Amino acid sequence: MISAGIVGCSGYAGLELTRILTQHPSVHLSVVTSRTDSGKLLRDINPSLLNSENLKITNVADPALGDCDVVFFATPHGVAMRHAETLLRRGVRIVDLSPDFRLRDSNVWEFWYGQEHCAKHLLDEAVYGLSEIYYDQIKTARLIANPGCYATAVQLALIPFLQAEELDPKNIIADAKSGISGAGRGSKRDNLFAEVSGNFRAYSVNGHRHHPEILQGLQEGLSDGSEVRLSFVPHIIPASRGILVTLHLRALRSINPQVTLENFYKDSCFVHIMRKGELPETRFVNGTNNCLISTCDQDLYDGFLVLVVIDNLIKGAAGQAVQNMNMMFQFKEEAGLESLCLIP
Amino acid sequence: MISAGIVGCSGYAGLELTRILTQHPSVHLSVVTSRTDSGKLLRDINPSLLNSENLKITNVADPALGDCDVVFFATPHGVAMRHAETLLRRGVRIVDLSPDFRLRDSNVWEFWYGQEHCAKHLLDEAVYGLSEIYYDQIKTARLIANPGCYATAVQLALIPFLQAEELDPKNIIADAKSGISGAGRGSKRDNLFAEVSGNFRAYSVNGHRHHPEILQGLQEGLSDGSEVRLSFVPHIIPASRGILVTLHLRALRSINPQVTLENFYKDSCFVHIMRKGELPETRFVNGTNNCLISTCDQDLYDGFLVLVVIDNLIKGAAGQAVQNMNMMFQFKEEAGLESLCLIP
Amino acid sequence: MISAGIVGCSGYAGLELTRILTQHPSVHLSVVTSRTDSGKLLRDINPSLLNSENLKITNVADPALGDCDVVFFATPHGVAMRHAETLLRRGVRIVDLSPDFRLRDSNVWEFWYGQEHCAKHLLDEAVYGLSEIYYDQIKTARLIANPGCYATAVQLALIPFLQAEELDPKNIIADAKSGISGAGRGSKRDNLFAEVSGNFRAYSVNGHRHHPEILQGLQEGLSDGSEVRLSFVPHIIPASRGILVTLHLRALRSINPQVTLENFYKDSCFVHIMRKGELPETRFVNGTNNCLISTCDQDLYDGFLVLVVIDNLIKGAAGQAVQNMNMMFQFKEEAGLESLCLIP
Amino acid sequence: MISAGIVGCSGYAGLELTRILTQHPSVHLSVVTSRTDSGKLLRDINPSLLNSENLKITNVADPALGDCDVVFFATPHGVAMRHAETLLRRGVRIVDLSPDFRLRDSNVWEFWYGQEHCAKHLLDEAVYGLSEIYYDQIKTARLIANPGCYATAVQLALIPFLQAEELDPKNIIADAKSGISGAGRGSKRDNLFAEVSGNFRAYSVNGHRHHPEILQGLQEGLSDGSEVRLSFVPHIIPASRGILVTLHLRALRSINPQVTLENFYKDSCFVHIMRKGELPETRFVNGTNNCLISTCDQDLYDGFLVLVVIDNLIKGAAGQAVQNMNMMFQFKEEAGLESLCLIP
Repeated sequence: MISAGIVGCSGYAGLELTRILTQHPSVHLSVVTSRTDSGKLLRDINPSLLNSENLKITNVADPALGDCDVVFFATPHGVAMRHAETLLRRGVRIVDLSPDFRLRDSNVWEFWYGQEHCAKHLLDEAVYGLSEIYYDQIKTARLIANPGCYATAVQLALIPFLQAEELDPKNIIADAKSGISGAGRGSKRDNLFAEVSGNFRAYSVNGHRHHPEILQGLQEGLSDGSEVRLSFVPHIIPASRGILVTLHLRALRSINPQVTLENFYKDSCFVHIMRKGELPETRFVNGTNNCLISTCDQDLYDGFLVLVVIDNLIKGAAGQAVQNMNMMFQFKEEAGLESLCLIP
Repeated sequence: MISAGIVGCSGYAGLELTRILTQHPSVHLSVVTSRTDSGKLLRDINPSLLNSENLKITNVADPALGDCDVVFFATPHGVAMRHAETLLRRGVRIVDLSPDFRLRDSNVWEFWYGQEHCAKHLLDEAVYGLSEIYYDQIKTARLIANPGCYATAVQLALIPFLQAEELDPKNIIADAKSGISGAGRGSKRDNLFAEVSGNFRAYSVNGHRHHPEILQGLQEGLSDGSEVRLSFVPHIIPASRGILVTLHLRALRSINPQVTLENFYKDSCFVHIMRKGELPETRFVNGTNNCLISTCDQDLYDGFLVLVVIDNLIKGAAGQAVQNMNMMFQFKEEAGLESLCLIP
Repeated sequence: MISAGIVGCSGYAGLELTRILTQHPSVHLSVVTSRTDSGKLLRDINPSLLNSENLKITNVADPALGDCDVVFFATPHGVAMRHAETLLRRGVRIVDLSPDFRLRDSNVWEFWYGQEHCAKHLLDEAVYGLSEIYYDQIKTARLIANPGCYATAVQLALIPFLQAEELDPKNIIADAKSGISGAGRGSKRDNLFAEVSGNFRAYSVNGHRHHPEILQGLQEGLSDGSEVRLSFVPHIIPASRGILVTLHLRALRSINPQVTLENFYKDSCFVHIMRKGELPETRFVNGTNNCLISTCDQDLYDGFLVLVVIDNLIKGAAGQAVQNMNMMFQFKEEAGLESLCLIP
Repeated sequence: MISAGIVGCSGYAGLELTRILTQHPSVHLSVVTSRTDSGKLLRDINPSLLNSENLKITNVADPALGDCDVVFFATPHGVAMRHAETLLRRGVRIVDLSPDFRLRDSNVWEFWYGQEHCAKHLLDEAVYGLSEIYYDQIKTARLIANPGCYATAVQLALIPFLQAEELDPKNIIADAKSGISGAGRGSKRDNLFAEVSGNFRAYSVNGHRHHPEILQGLQEGLSDGSEVRLSFVPHIIPASRGILVTLHLRALRSINPQVTLENFYKDSCFVHIMRKGELPETRFVNGTNNCLISTCDQDLYDGFLVLVVIDNLIKGAAGQAVQNMNMMFQFKEEAGLESLCLIP
């Protein structure tokens, strides 16, 4: 039994962390903090926690964070980098769901996030927490940079092909669609029900902050060092949760995409390759830590399709964070992550 | 470990039963049948069941049903009554989620369901499975008539007041709202996305089939035998799940509704009375077996309000069915029913 | 051709006013103001206005407002009362969609709105703009207090019965449901898509600001001076638009509710009584200035039902405001208000 | 004033035709037919038509169709081709919203629609009704093949580039998203609210019936005869209306996509090119006959983006059909099509 803390428990990823960790068999959730809900009880932010010990929400200055075995940051960018060093010195391991430690090059980070990075010395140590790819490093990491939601979906689908040198790296189209919870719980007009409902739109078409993160990951997947070029366009689905990415790809030679993926993920507990002819839907993964991937041939185009779905708040955030924690503390990889999807 | 069967696994209540029972610590789901999906695998109807043993869906004639310890019927009315006798004789206990055994008077049943009841001899034996009220009879029952979704919500909110003789039984207004999954998974134009989305409507305003069921239950809750009169109007929420019932009530004398409910449900694991000033929302119970109830005073009317929410497919169907099974087989009441709500 | 101004063009009611007035055959929209969108063009806030003259949005201090024939206030409470006197002195007629002039008693207003009323001297002159009821006064009014959305629906349904002395005034249950646009376009967490979608909840259960407005209107409809008591509970539908109110009523004597309503509204162009057996749905009025009302008998209760639907932003706000303007300037009552509902 | 008939008035495109034509200044809607709603009145299928003459719905055998000046077919494939000849002989002009006459090659049609084409002799005469491209032929046509919804959006966005020989025709990615009304009003499980809501999915990934239609149109736009290759993937948005297509394109040489489009559509009343930096959203066109197009540069990819939105039921069906009728009868092109979008 380890003790865990959550910084930022009342955003959408924080709420999911809270839900998962209060039911995790090997974790005692002992500290939860929130800027907006400090002073309330956990049951005030998730009323189904009626029977749980009712933990009081504190704030990020709570010294009890330093007594945790692991602390999760589910905060906007710029928070974790200010607190990481102190916690690490106290022996706390960190899973940071924010983007603070995802980009290895602090110049790139500063360009995309528009502020100075104040913990550059930790960037080298930070392990990128894409669980299925970096498991060896994750096991022993002190500081995990948990991947972004889009970045998780796109990389899980593409890295098998890049590692096998099967993909034309200059011809990658990632047309991505996400539920609105990916935009966070902040009070913005654009995220109001009456603005989102019944509507569909693209955004950040010439540069989303996950773009450099994805490029960095794909580039690392590519053994021969050639440059990856990616058309990445995110869109907002009028739904709360779920990401689907449609990848329009070109192979470098004759390949069997289905086999490439099945082999790569044959031992994975969360990434599942659908049978030929099946298509993924966001509802099949929402509420779970699963990633479903399909491949499709194209008779009318000289390419092939890969479709991938995850729950942006679980495999794309809180679930993968707990999966990483499970690896770090030698728990069963699925511990606390076995919920099934609700239909409907 | 008991073995369970589900007749009708691919409707919405059946899907929920499947989800709950495949994760229940004391149940082995050994038979699932479906008229529409016979021949498929469980993973075909819930793709998050990727890791489970992949049970093949059969049909209601499957003799393996007779080898189960318990069989659930998640079927339209008219099915369970045709199969109950045979299964009971084989020693199978039955939890019927359909309305076949809910009304004690077969004439009333035949009036509301427009067909002959073909198992009248079982009506006396059937125990009405409103878990919190009839727990003593449920424990030893062979045949459970699992309550309707609206009937569950309305009765759980009202019976405490009726038993305490605090309520004017001729002045009960139950204004009910339900997600569309309550209408089932049949392919009807009225239930299409483009008909339901963005729309709100009442239906069955002068006689919903849950009306006589509710009246029967309330009447039994009323010790003095006076007649209950109920204005019950159901509406469709443009949402998949969740019931909220707004009860506009009049007290017979000066009462404290909050105390009445808190006392009545003080030991309940699933029915929770919210603190004064808190209001229930369907999202607080969706995905759970919980029932949340609030009471509210009214300064501008000579009455009081009770608001109650449940997930129509869980506490209003599959969850309560499993809760009843847990009681019948002396499992922990919450077994398999501990999931928390997802926000958002 | 008259010239019109809108104060507050970028809230939801303001957007509807803009849409309606730019297409009105007898109106030239000459001034639009907005606190948040000042400096933009009209096409920036409604991109389907691509072909219209592209009016620049100014702010409430724009002197051009004083040159209009009519100015609409689509502002939060507290704005119109500060500007009305100045405009009236310039000969401008005012239709105020805010609540500033709706309550005749300034003490009641100050209790409910928590601030001092700074234009009490105008309260007597202000005409309550419930078009179908106060048409005679509306025609000659300088200052219209346009009714609230719930207040419009409830009063249109009840006043015919009250005027006919058919209704028990102490037994009125108005269970109201509204799309979220009624909560305005302000950036509040409660109104985010991920909070509203798939959810249903009540709010302001012991005192919504429309409650005293409704009581005032009903009381005026009641000739014999007995006191009206109303249980009014509003709920949020997970939809952008539309109000449905379910009225659970008791008659004072044997009445025919269908006939009472049909006679009352036989000459109305916007209020339509549905045929017996038909039920209103919000989609049937959304996008229109119509109000649909149904009556239903109840076999299992000693009362009767009236169901009423309006589009909260049109008949409940901008549409009724234009209807009032049409009356004030002797235009055809339907002018600019002839749009039909979109299905789906 | 011409007289018009609609075959198939109660599907979603038919409902839109009904709405538009009952308000068209130069059209008298004299016949409406429907397989499912025959015998009802128009107000039964659109309750906002309360004041209109209440036309009775007949069926396709109604001889009055032969007396119309124009008949619209809003039917599934296979109906219009059986009735066209008879009507044309009676001097009726036809706008067919179904796919029966869209593909010039009957073999291709028979491959995609899986049945024999029974009016092949009319394929040559039929004019493809993409209003902005084929206006000259449309004016004099007797038989219009109204384009499919996806086909309209994709072609309007691409043809300007193809005609200018600016586009690599082998590298066209059309990632398309549509509201569910595009799937029609038939009662299918896949289209139920509880299946679509909160969900996002792709479908027909290796061959949608609009694919050959789009290819045919693009190929005609291409002067040099080289082959067009298109990756076309349609998806279902959990919304009733609206199409957004994201086009990932490569130029053959250095081009200015914004200028290409602005020049091409400078005189168009319905196709509008957004200003640089603006992005289209489906809500900006829903309820209108507009098509909004944006172009975006890409710094991180060697291509450019074009985004296009239309209302699938208006510009993608009924609206374009009426636009074509306006051209055929020398009415103002916008007649009956001037409605603005509702926000929200």
